[in-house]
Amino acid sequence: MHLPLLNCDIGESFGAWKMGLDAEVMPYIDCANIACGYHAGDPGSMRRTVALALAHDVRIGAHPGYPDLLGFGRRSLECSAQEIEDMLHYQIGALDGICRAQGARVSYVKPHGALYNDMMRKPEQLRAVMRAVAAYDRGLPLMLLSTRDNQGALAMAAEFGLRLWFETFSDRAYTPEGHLVSRQLPGAVHHDSRQVIAQALTLARGEALGASDGSALRLRADSICVHGDNPGSVEAVRQLRAALDALVPA
Amino acid sequence: MHLPLLNCDIGESFGAWKMGLDAEVMPYIDCANIACGYHAGDPGSMRRTVALALAHDVRIGAHPGYPDLLGFGRRSLECSAQEIEDMLHYQIGALDGICRAQGARVSYVKPHGALYNDMMRKPEQLRAVMRAVAAYDRGLPLMLLSTRDNQGALAMAAEFGLRLWFETFSDRAYTPEGHLVSRQLPGAVHHDSRQVIAQALTLARGEALGASDGSALRLRADSICVHGDNPGSVEAVRQLRAALDALVPA
Amino acid sequence: MHLPLLNCDIGESFGAWKMGLDAEVMPYIDCANIACGYHAGDPGSMRRTVALALAHDVRIGAHPGYPDLLGFGRRSLECSAQEIEDMLHYQIGALDGICRAQGARVSYVKPHGALYNDMMRKPEQLRAVMRAVAAYDRGLPLMLLSTRDNQGALAMAAEFGLRLWFETFSDRAYTPEGHLVSRQLPGAVHHDSRQVIAQALTLARGEALGASDGSALRLRADSICVHGDNPGSVEAVRQLRAALDALVPA
Amino acid sequence: MHLPLLNCDIGESFGAWKMGLDAEVMPYIDCANIACGYHAGDPGSMRRTVALALAHDVRIGAHPGYPDLLGFGRRSLECSAQEIEDMLHYQIGALDGICRAQGARVSYVKPHGALYNDMMRKPEQLRAVMRAVAAYDRGLPLMLLSTRDNQGALAMAAEFGLRLWFETFSDRAYTPEGHLVSRQLPGAVHHDSRQVIAQALTLARGEALGASDGSALRLRADSICVHGDNPGSVEAVRQLRAALDALVPA
Repeated sequence: MHLPLLNCDIGESFGAWKMGLDAEVMPYIDCANIACGYHAGDPGSMRRTVALALAHDVRIGAHPGYPDLLGFGRRSLECSAQEIEDMLHYQIGALDGICRAQGARVSYVKPHGALYNDMMRKPEQLRAVMRAVAAYDRGLPLMLLSTRDNQGALAMAAEFGLRLWFETFSDRAYTPEGHLVSRQLPGAVHHDSRQVIAQALTLARGEALGASDGSALRLRADSICVHGDNPGSVEAVRQLRAALDALVPA
Repeated sequence: MHLPLLNCDIGESFGAWKMGLDAEVMPYIDCANIACGYHAGDPGSMRRTVALALAHDVRIGAHPGYPDLLGFGRRSLECSAQEIEDMLHYQIGALDGICRAQGARVSYVKPHGALYNDMMRKPEQLRAVMRAVAAYDRGLPLMLLSTRDNQGALAMAAEFGLRLWFETFSDRAYTPEGHLVSRQLPGAVHHDSRQVIAQALTLARGEALGASDGSALRLRADSICVHGDNPGSVEAVRQLRAALDALVPA
Repeated sequence: MHLPLLNCDIGESFGAWKMGLDAEVMPYIDCANIACGYHAGDPGSMRRTVALALAHDVRIGAHPGYPDLLGFGRRSLECSAQEIEDMLHYQIGALDGICRAQGARVSYVKPHGALYNDMMRKPEQLRAVMRAVAAYDRGLPLMLLSTRDNQGALAMAAEFGLRLWFETFSDRAYTPEGHLVSRQLPGAVHHDSRQVIAQALTLARGEALGASDGSALRLRADSICVHGDNPGSVEAVRQLRAALDALVPA
Repeated sequence: MHLPLLNCDIGESFGAWKMGLDAEVMPYIDCANIACGYHAGDPGSMRRTVALALAHDVRIGAHPGYPDLLGFGRRSLECSAQEIEDMLHYQIGALDGICRAQGARVSYVKPHGALYNDMMRKPEQLRAVMRAVAAYDRGLPLMLLSTRDNQGALAMAAEFGLRLWFETFSDRAYTPEGHLVSRQLPGAVHHDSRQVIAQALTLARGEALGASDGSALRLRADSICVHGDNPGSVEAVRQLRAALDALVPA
């Protein structure tokens, strides 16, 4: 059985400002999406986060964002395809530089915040991201949101010879189309840890979820996104890790 | 005969602001010191400058600086050795990322402005720079200022297994100790192109210069620093290139 | 006769990077839109530009933009109304601080680039800008684009007790609705200086222009926007100034 | 009796990153040193902090720093006197802009971190700071470190017609010269709250402290610096406030 990888945004401190329980959550995840200095992270925090990931044998992913520290990369910035490509090369390279100094390498790419959302909404921006990753290193998978129908993204990736990792959420409700239910709506976020774990196991087994209208929704789940913001979310990741590991025969 | 490499600070535009005649000077130089976004340069300018260097078969050097766009990296910033190492890895990696997307690689490192000056003044900072370059890639030479006695730097580099490229100036007067005469003093800068070329040829032949007190000064000259700021300096580089090339038998 | 004020974006240098012929164009304009450090300008350039404006008895306007030096404030950034207000207060205040140190004051506000365009497209953003200016100082006029029908903007300004200065362009073609013809289209920019001056005089006299479809278009013209980017544009401003001044009986 | 004012660095969050218990400590202080965006603080945090200060009737001070978010303004940056003046006008003005929008004003200035330390070490930099504050508004006191002999600073301030507020520390040991004992040395920081309160009362009564060598040290104490970093420091400020208030007859 091929378990979904647990991925987590991490390394989001900046200078004197701390954010996230990186050391606490790292033992339970497979993939560390490390901020690259544009929306969060600085050379020192990147070094420490890379070292922490290496110590726990966690895959290091570049987590590039828009150049907007103040807005934490959550505000959409109108960029050309060329600007997107350039800023990805810069950020992936910068993190890779920090990695190389520790004998490691970036091993996948997951865009952050508004850059991620814009890529999912606008095919030309998704294409720019794919072109950027492929030009940097065709061997790096791109992580993006799994939806009911991933064919468009897969076809586009095939043009670039790029691998995709589709991520899912175990703590979020889905629309019938396989999009996340807006956080503005009731029931968008699962707060009951049993429900979160049940959804993760369903995703891991490749079975269908119940979408927000009750219909069956099957999602490709190469990865599940988790959070390390606070003690509660770290504990949830710990439980999720244990539940997933129990799926695999010893 | 082994000619000194002509190196030039380049790629110093930022966004809408242009600086330097990069396209004009590129044909005449061997080594392009490309700004990495901290004191100048942005992902787009870095991409264009790398492409220009590749088109002219010019070596690509990382030209990292202090994080000070406003001061163009010319203001000293009090940093720890660890901060120096981290910012070098970030910047070298970022430029290398831009290079990789074009199938190229950074091939040497020359710190910029106040970072360069501080490194020449403070051994512990030179050590931090050497440790950073060696940890990134021991194969990348570090370019630094040639003085009368380079033994200290060479011994330190030997600890790290690092190669050094000593650069000289053909348009500047030297003190007997082999430091540049301060620009505040008369005669610090040679304005006569015949004098500049004569000094370059002296350096290239490994002969002794006349220092500011008339004493003989022999400088190791792996490279000569040139400038592409304006049409006059580009023309000076063109002449220098021709004069140096004429030293080599056809 | 009340001549339209000539306004010009100015003080757009940043650190070592120079932009614009500020000293050359200042003698011919009435209103200097001075960049406030977010998209261009720095404390030193702002001080010099304020001094230059004072020397020529030119009104000092705050020219705030999105926090995007790299994009020169030309890229739209998705901001909340509150974020718009806050960034305006910060930037207007910063320029006012530079002014106060020279015994002067900011006397109007004109948003820059994408912030200006977004304000003209989105009423809620125009409202945020008006609320910000009114809260800072109700006595400062807001400069914005004149269109065929300015009633919406005027009604909104009345809510805040705010004065508006409607600006026009003498070097641009207008659609019948009173919008600028896109630069992508032929004939969008007038390159013949006689045509530019003729359009300025028409605007100054309060007469109707010919829109791009030949229809008559009357625009309120409290101000005309001019440019000081290069010697040609400065010469155009000089001629425009002379032509407008000649309208007034000695 | 004239009690020393309790001053506290505050408003040091930046975007998504929170720092300090601003709401908790504000009720107990007299003077809020609000970060102005260069080393910490952003337009939104500045607005919220100004509102909080107004709600508690606390004096608003500009707390300008070097332009170094990454280093939190704690790293010395080699600046000219002119650059110091310009950056002070920009930052004081920016905070004043936020204040004006709420009907308030900046009422004093206290430089931050390395800018503060450099000002205390280098008379030419202190002069630049004084010139900047005086040019902005001669009515704004400058807060600086009280030492055994404040005559030099007072004489310099008299040249500018500037008022000085000398601040002291109730939780730090002093050398016989009236400098703070380095944090590297044992006994530099008082951890016993009774000792802190006793030192504050001694300062408030204008009596002499015992310096680190046991000698008597009398310090002018217009203000005492307190901290709101964590629950412990907030509780210490609450106790200090109560102890000082008890000095004044009801």
